[in-house]
Amino acid sequence: MLPKGFLSFGKNIGIKDNTKDFAVIYSSVPCKAAAVFTQNNFPGAPIVIGREHIKNGILQAIVINSKNSNVATGKKGIQDALDICKALSVSLGIKVEDVLPSSTGVIGVPLPLDKILNACRTAREDLREDALEEVATAIMTTDKQKKISARNINKPEGTGNIFAMAKGAGMIEPNMATMLCFILTDMKIKTSNIHDILKRVVDKTFNCLSIDSDTSTSDTVVLLSNELSVEVEENEFESVLLNICTDLTKKIARDGEGATKLIELCISDAESLDQAKKIGKSVLNSPLVKTAIYGGDPNWGRFVMAIGKVFDEIIDYDTLSLKIGGIEVKNANELVKKELSVYLKDNTEIQINISLGTGSINSTFWGCDLTEGYIKENAYYTT
Amino acid sequence: MLPKGFLSFGKNIGIKDNTKDFAVIYSSVPCKAAAVFTQNNFPGAPIVIGREHIKNGILQAIVINSKNSNVATGKKGIQDALDICKALSVSLGIKVEDVLPSSTGVIGVPLPLDKILNACRTAREDLREDALEEVATAIMTTDKQKKISARNINKPEGTGNIFAMAKGAGMIEPNMATMLCFILTDMKIKTSNIHDILKRVVDKTFNCLSIDSDTSTSDTVVLLSNELSVEVEENEFESVLLNICTDLTKKIARDGEGATKLIELCISDAESLDQAKKIGKSVLNSPLVKTAIYGGDPNWGRFVMAIGKVFDEIIDYDTLSLKIGGIEVKNANELVKKELSVYLKDNTEIQINISLGTGSINSTFWGCDLTEGYIKENAYYTT
Repeated sequence: MLPKGFLSFGKNIGIKDNTKDFAVIYSSVPCKAAAVFTQNNFPGAPIVIGREHIKNGILQAIVINSKNSNVATGKKGIQDALDICKALSVSLGIKVEDVLPSSTGVIGVPLPLDKILNACRTAREDLREDALEEVATAIMTTDKQKKISARNINKPEGTGNIFAMAKGAGMIEPNMATMLCFILTDMKIKTSNIHDILKRVVDKTFNCLSIDSDTSTSDTVVLLSNELSVEVEENEFESVLLNICTDLTKKIARDGEGATKLIELCISDAESLDQAKKIGKSVLNSPLVKTAIYGGDPNWGRFVMAIGKVFDEIIDYDTLSLKIGGIEVKNANELVKKELSVYLKDNTEIQINISLGTGSINSTFWGCDLTEGYIKENAYYTT
Repeated sequence: MLPKGFLSFGKNIGIKDNTKDFAVIYSSVPCKAAAVFTQNNFPGAPIVIGREHIKNGILQAIVINSKNSNVATGKKGIQDALDICKALSVSLGIKVEDVLPSSTGVIGVPLPLDKILNACRTAREDLREDALEEVATAIMTTDKQKKISARNINKPEGTGNIFAMAKGAGMIEPNMATMLCFILTDMKIKTSNIHDILKRVVDKTFNCLSIDSDTSTSDTVVLLSNELSVEVEENEFESVLLNICTDLTKKIARDGEGATKLIELCISDAESLDQAKKIGKSVLNSPLVKTAIYGGDPNWGRFVMAIGKVFDEIIDYDTLSLKIGGIEVKNANELVKKELSVYLKDNTEIQINISLGTGSINSTFWGCDLTEGYIKENAYYTT
């Protein structure tokens, strides 16, 4: 079931072509809200406004356009983002600071402001109860699939619902947050701080994802809780949120630009989370690892190289274990290599386990292979 | 003219196919020598032995094979590298610790030791005066071009010569050193420490190069000076060495796996060399920047993203200047974008100037574009 009290729509307003490019999410009552944003030093204009509007922990609507990120557009871009919030707040009869703006698409091009303002003015009449999937479509850029994840919690007194959507396929190595992700729930979470819950979950999910090592200027994850259904414990909610965000992280990795394979990498027996993260990202971002997985090349030495190039994390080669699809590949002979090659070629979900032997910390990371499709997609994106 | 007193050869001994894969460089007298090696934590066996043999600052021969890097081959690999040095030292009548071993190629496969030992035993009769170009060919792996650079210094009392060769096209983001580079000179350098000269030059050249952000386990730069010709001042020599290493760095970048364009990136007005390096490498390694340059896509926003994703180096967007081919592209309108696209498409050497406006430090970096050719090359390398 969809979370109660959320209305929305997604439609085409002609920003670039005739695909859906504009969406609004609205809650009939103000929501407790938390958000995390990109750490890129040149954040988009919507991020600048969004950071202001989230400050009091209350939001009631999100206005989103795709095909243009409103990034590197100067003071005019910031004014545009604010004007969009104003137009929507007037249309919906809510406070301007309860609107979060969000944009994704090409960098450095002014927004087609008139088209967006017009769409804001007529937003009220477009809102519907069953349109969240339409929103998930409208926020896509180079995504091939819309990315949705939903769960519910059953209580004697009723059902609590949570629905989340994400977009993102390139320029993805989030830090603090990833691309766009909107999480809506009608549950009342028993906590003093939903931001801390969101941050903990994002650190274990979206922040463990890399498609191409490039960190977007627009990354945004927002959680809205309108408290219209049941009350749940903090732990119970966090566990469901972790489940949903892991699901969306894998969906983003699987739909990485040009990707043919999802990579799930478990770093285990690390000395610290920091060590696990540095080595995990080094392996996931290595173009030589990514192309070997794409080609089904049993070139396990590239994994060794990628672990070893984290200069400040010394790992003992003798205690290092490196398993791909459950096969121990360190010092693999020709027979094992053949087995490895078959595993890589036959599977679209590649499981890698690297045990560092330096401690007892475990962490999981997600990424994808690197193919000609990524090159084609990105050599000609704006043109 | 070639440096005096160096004999060499390169030939095929059947390590992988019928291309040249084995070479020896020998000086008729012991040389003052310096070397820098990879910082990868899992260095190849030849690096382990090489670090020992360079300790006293004297070398007389280098023995090199391509097509197999002797990396991740355990204790056997180290013994193999030592046995190779021994066999060559017996053949040439020199000390075993004056031989530097060097291997490049696939990781994790035992060397075909017998073939190499046989070639060492007959090395003396293969040595010739004019074979250095043959060596430059024998050390190639995925390189399309051999990479040679030579200079001389004329003095009233005679001519001093320096000849250098390098290899490398993938797994290239050197740290401390790059891939294989052998620099031979007959000059007597007036210095107490040729290692410091080499280190300073390598930091400004090979360490400012990235093809694919992957740091090899075999990177080695060696300088041999047999002092058979004229005496030169330290500064004079360092300037020629800088010239040669810059030349080779650009040759490696231009021949990057699948590359169609050499990128020369000047970071200027930085606060520190460290800031210039972090931002320079972030831009050069960004797959979105590299594919935009490949496709001639005037998507300048990707450069902004790549500068901004160095989270701990805050740059003021207003004072940032971003020139590509001399064209200021920040906030480019459609006309400027068209001009930029033409520049990117028409040139095989792309000049980028980024002024950070935070200080007065300048530094230059080299890289290449990212194309389908890189993917093809690396998806099927070992097979």
